[in-house]
Order: sequence, then structure tokens, then C-alpha cells
Amino acid sequence: MDKQVFHFTQSSTAFYFNGSFGALKEITDLKNALFITDENLFAAYPKKFTGKRTIVLKAGEKYKTQTTVDKIIAQLIAYGADRTTTLIGVGGGVITDITGYVAAVYMRGIRFGFVPTTILSMVDAAIGGKNGIDVGIYKNMVGTIRQPAFILHDHQLLQTLPQKEWAYGFAEIIKHSCIKDAAMFRLLQGFTIDTIRRDKKTLATLLRQNAQLKLSVVQRDEFEKGERKLLNFGHTLGHAIENRYKLPHGYAVSLGMMYACRLSEQLTGFAQTAQVQQLLQQYGLPVAKKIDLQAAFEVLTKDKKKDGNSIAFILLEKIGTSTIQPIPFRELKKLLASL
Amino acid sequence: MDKQVFHFTQSSTAFYFNGSFGALKEITDLKNALFITDENLFAAYPKKFTGKRTIVLKAGEKYKTQTTVDKIIAQLIAYGADRTTTLIGVGGGVITDITGYVAAVYMRGIRFGFVPTTILSMVDAAIGGKNGIDVGIYKNMVGTIRQPAFILHDHQLLQTLPQKEWAYGFAEIIKHSCIKDAAMFRLLQGFTIDTIRRDKKTLATLLRQNAQLKLSVVQRDEFEKGERKLLNFGHTLGHAIENRYKLPHGYAVSLGMMYACRLSEQLTGFAQTAQVQQLLQQYGLPVAKKIDLQAAFEVLTKDKKKDGNSIAFILLEKIGTSTIQPIPFRELKKLLASL
Repeated sequence: MDKQVFHFTQSSTAFYFNGSFGALKEITDLKNALFITDENLFAAYPKKFTGKRTIVLKAGEKYKTQTTVDKIIAQLIAYGADRTTTLIGVGGGVITDITGYVAAVYMRGIRFGFVPTTILSMVDAAIGGKNGIDVGIYKNMVGTIRQPAFILHDHQLLQTLPQKEWAYGFAEIIKHSCIKDAAMFRLLQGFTIDTIRRDKKTLATLLRQNAQLKLSVVQRDEFEKGERKLLNFGHTLGHAIENRYKLPHGYAVSLGMMYACRLSEQLTGFAQTAQVQQLLQQYGLPVAKKIDLQAAFEVLTKDKKKDGNSIAFILLEKIGTSTIQPIPFRELKKLLASL
Repeated sequence: MDKQVFHFTQSSTAFYFNGSFGALKEITDLKNALFITDENLFAAYPKKFTGKRTIVLKAGEKYKTQTTVDKIIAQLIAYGADRTTTLIGVGGGVITDITGYVAAVYMRGIRFGFVPTTILSMVDAAIGGKNGIDVGIYKNMVGTIRQPAFILHDHQLLQTLPQKEWAYGFAEIIKHSCIKDAAMFRLLQGFTIDTIRRDKKTLATLLRQNAQLKLSVVQRDEFEKGERKLLNFGHTLGHAIENRYKLPHGYAVSLGMMYACRLSEQLTGFAQTAQVQQLLQQYGLPVAKKIDLQAAFEVLTKDKKKDGNSIAFILLEKIGTSTIQPIPFRELKKLLASL
């Protein structure tokens, strides 16, 4: 398999690009592993889990809660999991977030790895060690930062991914291109979800490039003191509306990027909102929705990224170039009213 | 104040020996701090908490659970706590364990510090970054390792500490002397709880020496790969019986040290059990109790320190010299039957 090792503050992650689920046995001792997945994946790939100790969760963000964590921990104790056990999360961002969190706190930390099964988790959610659960309407209010021992991409698993999940995954790919890579933005302009699904070579290149882009940012700034904040482009307002309106993450981020582009117009003179809007639409992503931005503002005032009386927003200067700007809540309230 | 800074893998802890609660305002911005304490301390020191945002917990190990963590997190959200907030745990080991854990996971980690109010937490529980909560009968089954930004000792707070809590604290001091410091063991032989309470200078020296002993072990081995395991002397069987029989921690550790001495007799030829027993009794600690060791064995088989089919025990070679020995569960079962 195509392996690359990335080093972090306290640990390293072995990354297997273009690997296969079956090769997991070469990476880790499966006899001392416990799998965590959701009911949809467990039903879609019964053979993959045959003979493996597997904890099956209900599918969906609404189960990314402490109640689910409590149930997993009870099962780990019942299975006799100990500090030699490896947890393997197989799924999208909800599964990898919750698996990483449980592994970080069970017995003060056990080994874990991921097999992401969605575009979004392959290029974003499974990478970088952030894990967590939601508390009420507050996304990822509780969690830690801890790196997985390994991440394995198996593109075969994308065959059962619904079309709209492809679009939501591309929201993060478009995000990466907006903040860091104008060339990737231009490449994306030449495709749609349908054409990229058929072009397996370009797809493989994009998945790898995007994972590497995120990994290299995280390597330089694991604990989000600076550069890593750029990855929050579209996520500040995105998170604020996601749980309130029960939107899929990629859907909310697409709207969040549109808001961030329009804030950028006012604050940095950004002048390419139309191009971003066109690309999002080309990939089947939403660019407008009736949203109560004042209610979203109230959620922002409790956001974990806030810093006293202001909150850091990620703005674009031009496509491929982004900047971090703290906006005082007083000013933000006015700006949102003007959108 | 008498300040010393200790450096760890990712952070450092400022240690204030022989300080005063009132000096907290010199250490941290109290306007952006939130206090966590228990109802007993809140009632005993009402003036200390006047004008301070304080979360008051029910007192006792049985509240060191996820349910309490959930309630604290709800209050942090309600107070608008964010990543600039400092949590300050004022109390014994239960309060510092739970404060450290909440601070480690709230918003993926916020700043925190401790004012330990018991001998036990001053010399042990508040030091070293281990935090956590219990799950059923399993002690500290969930937690992380994360260092406090500061620890402040205020000996005045010991004035309201009940006599039996003094004894439980000295269980850990006796532990330190057994594993690392024969001279301290001999010093302890010259005192009782009553005489040491009256000798404030020797007490201050002992509190500082014991905190430093633990800090230097943790500095050398923060994540318990080796030397730090020595601090578990008396804690392996101690933990296994503590929650089952609802024993105070120091009480269980005293019994655990007696068991560990007797295992040491069989495995290392240790020949000073009588001296350890005498010292424990001199400080009002238990040395024998009717315990179902086979039931305790079953708890050990789920202990987080187990490693597959064996568990690391800390044994004494002589007073002041300890060693780590993995004991296979099959052998341990026989050894316990012989005690």
C-alpha cells in the first residue's frame, strides 16, 4: 500500500492512501482490535465485519452525544478492552469524531485508527486529531486533540456513498482550494460530481492532495494557535446554523462559505464571490437559504472559538489566499444585519 | 510566595508552596476564572468564594461520575466560559480529578489550576496531570493526562481537615517513603498525626518534599511508561477494593500496601513488612480487614493497568527501594489465595 508517515507533537500517524479494508490486518493486530461503525455501514458491508468485535451505533449527527459515549464505554468494559486494545472507527465524521474521543479518554487514552468511508471524512474529518461530541446545539463542545495511529483510505467504500454525500464532501475540498490552492480551484472548475466520479485517477489525486494539504497544516500547527484556524473557513457561521437547522455539515459549510465571502467583500475587498458561488452550485451545494442570522449570532457568542468579546473569522483576500481576522461581536452583529 | 516551575511534555506547572488562597489574584485573572468546589468547603469558607463565580458540587467520591461532568459542562456553557477561561478546582482529590477532566475536554481543553485542601491532594492527587471519573466500580476508568497551569498550597486550609483525612493523606506520604525514600520513612517513624500537626515546620517540609518527589517522577515519565508506575504501590489491589467496599482512598491504599508487602515477601524476598505495618498503625491507618480477594481479583482483570494476560505490580525490595513486576493473572490468582 501507498504509505506515508506524518509526525505530530506527541505521536505520528501512518497514512495509507489508496489502500484496502482487507489490508487492515497488515497494519494492526485485529485480534486485539475493536471496531466502531454505524448501522448503515454494518448493513452495507456485512462481510467486512464478520468475525470482528464491532460496536454498532445508530447513524447520524444527532447521536454524536455523551449518551452514545457512555454506551460505548460500557461495551468496552464488557469486552475487556484495555490499554493494549486498538479502536478502529469505520465511517464518516460522526464515527471518527466519536471513536477518537472515546479512545482519548478511555483508560486515559488507548490506540486508535480510522477507515473513513465518506469524501468528507477522507479529506477532512478523520484528519488532524480533533475529536468530540455535541452538547445540545453546540457542535463539538466537548472533545480533545489526539492523533490516530493510522488512517486507511479504501476508495471502494465510496461506491455506496449517496450522491448528496459526495457533494457535502466536495464542500471541504472547495474550502481547501479557496483558502490555500488556487490551482486546485481551477481544476475543480473543470469537473462536476458526475464527471469526477468517473475519472478515478483525478479523484484519487484530489483525495490524496486534500488529505495532505490538511495534514501539513496540522503538522505545522497541531493545537490551532495560528495557521490551522484557516481550515475554519465557512465553519464559524456554518457550525452556528448546522445544529440549529439540523443541516448536514457540508450543506451548512457551503452556506457558511458564502457568508464568509460576503463578509470578506466588506472587510478585505474580496471580489470573487461569484466564482465561489458558481463552483459550489456546480457541485450541487446550496448558496442561499432563509436563515435567522441574529439567532445564529447568539450561538456564536458561545462558540468555542470566541475569545472574550470577539471571534476569529477566516476571510478570503482572493481565491487561494486567506487570512484570520478577529471581529468584535458588536461589529459582527451589524455586519450580519447587512447581509 | 515560594514558587517553583516544573516543565512537562507540552506545558508547565507553576507550583506555589506555602502560599495563600488570597494570593490567587496574583496568579490568574479572577474575573475570567470559574471555581469548582464541594458543598462542604463552600460552607466552611464562605468568604473565600464571595464574589467569585463558583460551581458547587456534592461532596464525595460517589459523585465523581459522568453525570456530574455533564452538569458542570451545562453550567460552563451557561456562564459563557470559553477558551480564555481558567477553571480553578478547590478541594480534595475528587474535586481536582473532576476539574482537571472537565478542563481537558471542554472546548477541547481550557486552562486550569488547583488549590488542594487535603494532605492527600497536596502531596499526590492534585499533582501529575492524571484526571478522571469513575465508571461503576471501576476507578478513574475515563480521564486524560493534562497538567494544571498552577497548584497553590495554603496550609491554613488544613485546619478544617478531619483527623481521619490527615491519616488518609499520610498513607500516600508513607507510600512515597516506601518506594523512594528510606530517610523519610525513618523521619515518619518519629511522629504521629498529632505530633506532626503541631510541628508546622516539619509538616511544611514534608508537604513540599512529597509534592516534589511526585513532581520529579512525573517530569521524568509523564505518560507512565516506566518509573511513574512505582507510584501505584498499594494502588493496584487498593483500587480494586476501594469502590467495591466503598472505602476512603487512603484507607484502601493502606490495605493495598499491606497486600503488596506480603506479595513482595513471596516475590522479592522483602523482609520489612512488620516495619511498614507498624508505621501505618502509628498513623491510624488500617492494616487488615476482611476482604474477598477473589472478588477483588475479578476487578483487577478489568483494571486499566492490565496488559493482556498480566498486570504490573509494584513490589518492595527493601524500604525505600521498589520495583515493577508484571504478574500473570493465573499466578496472581494463586498468590492472592495464599494471603
